[in-house]
Amino acid sequence: MYLRAISFLQQQAREYVSSQDLADQLHLKSPQIRKDFSYFGAFGVKGTGYHVDTLIGRIRDILKLSSIQKAALIGAGRLGKALALYPGFGMYGFEIVEIFDSSPQKIGKKIGNTKIKSINDLGDMEEQGIRLAILAVPSEAAQEVADRLVESGIRGILNMAPCYITVPKRVRVQTIDIAMELGILPYYV
Amino acid sequence: MYLRAISFLQQQAREYVSSQDLADQLHLKSPQIRKDFSYFGAFGVKGTGYHVDTLIGRIRDILKLSSIQKAALIGAGRLGKALALYPGFGMYGFEIVEIFDSSPQKIGKKIGNTKIKSINDLGDMEEQGIRLAILAVPSEAAQEVADRLVESGIRGILNMAPCYITVPKRVRVQTIDIAMELGILPYYV
Repeated sequence: MYLRAISFLQQQAREYVSSQDLADQLHLKSPQIRKDFSYFGAFGVKGTGYHVDTLIGRIRDILKLSSIQKAALIGAGRLGKALALYPGFGMYGFEIVEIFDSSPQKIGKKIGNTKIKSINDLGDMEEQGIRLAILAVPSEAAQEVADRLVESGIRGILNMAPCYITVPKRVRVQTIDIAMELGILPYYV
Repeated sequence: MYLRAISFLQQQAREYVSSQDLADQLHLKSPQIRKDFSYFGAFGVKGTGYHVDTLIGRIRDILKLSSIQKAALIGAGRLGKALALYPGFGMYGFEIVEIFDSSPQKIGKKIGNTKIKSINDLGDMEEQGIRLAILAVPSEAAQEVADRLVESGIRGILNMAPCYITVPKRVRVQTIDIAMELGILPYYV
C-alpha cells in the first residue's frame, strides 16, 4: 500500500512526502507510518518529510520488486485479455512474457506482442526464469492448471478464478475474487 | 469467504458440511468456524455437520444478499467488458443493469444485452434502485467519476482503478488493485 501510494506521488513529480500526508491518504496514524519507515531504514527530515525516490527504492528492494519479474498468464479469455494488456503491472516491474490457453481458436493468435501458446506446451517455467503466473481460467479448470504450474516450477500464483486452489506449501497463492469484493458492499450500504 | 466456500459445495450438490471440512479448506480452526456459525444462528449436528442450504440462506441474509442487487458499471474498456460479462456476479445475486462510458465510439453499443450509455446521462441512481457501482475507468478519471456516482446516490463502489478515491463517509469503497496483489508475491517466492 505504501508503494502504491508513494508511486502515485512520484508520478505527480512530488519530491518529498510527509508521514502526515500519507496518513491522511491511507487512513492510518502518522506515528505508525514513521515506525514502519524506520524499520525500512528510511528516515524523514523534520519539516521536509521523506524523499520519495529513496523511499520507493527501499520498499521495492524489500518487496523484491527492484528487477523485472517475468510472469506467465494462463487463460486468454475476456479477463485474461484485459489482464495481458493491463497497464498497472508495469508499476511493479511485472512483464507478462508468456500466454497460454487451451482453446484451439485462441492458440497462435496474439495479445499485444505475445503469441498465445497451447497449455500443453507449458514447459519448464523455472528454466525460463518465470516464477509467477496469473491464473485467469474458469473455476472448473483452475485446480488442474494450478497443478501443472506447480510442476513447471512456478512459485507464486495470482488466482483470478473464484475458487480455492490447493498447492504445496512452497508455492504462494494470492486470490482475487471480484464478485466477493462486490459482495461485501451491500452489508454496509 | 464462508459464503463462497459453501456455495461451491452447494454447486457440487453437497447437502451437509462439517466445520472441520471448512476449516481445512479455508485454513482456519474448526472451533473458530463453529463459534462464527453460532453467531449466525446456525447450529450443526454432531456427526452430520451443517445443512448447506440453511447456512447459505443465513449468511446471505446477514450480508443482505438475499435479494437481487442492481449495480451500474462505469467504464466499458477491456476490463469493464470482462466484468460486464463476468459470470461470478450471479452467485452473489448481482445484476449489472447499467453501463456507462465517456467514449463516443462505445456509447450506443451493447455489451451482452445492456446498451452503453454516456456518462453524462448518469441520472439519479437512487431513484432507479441502484445503490452499487463498479468503477473500471483509468486512474486519471476515477476521482471525477466517483464524485458523480456519489452525487447520483450510489452508496457502495467497487473500485478497480489502481488509485485511491475519496468519498463521503456514508459511501463505502472496496478497492481491487490487481497489480498490487501480484506485487505481494515476489517477496514470498
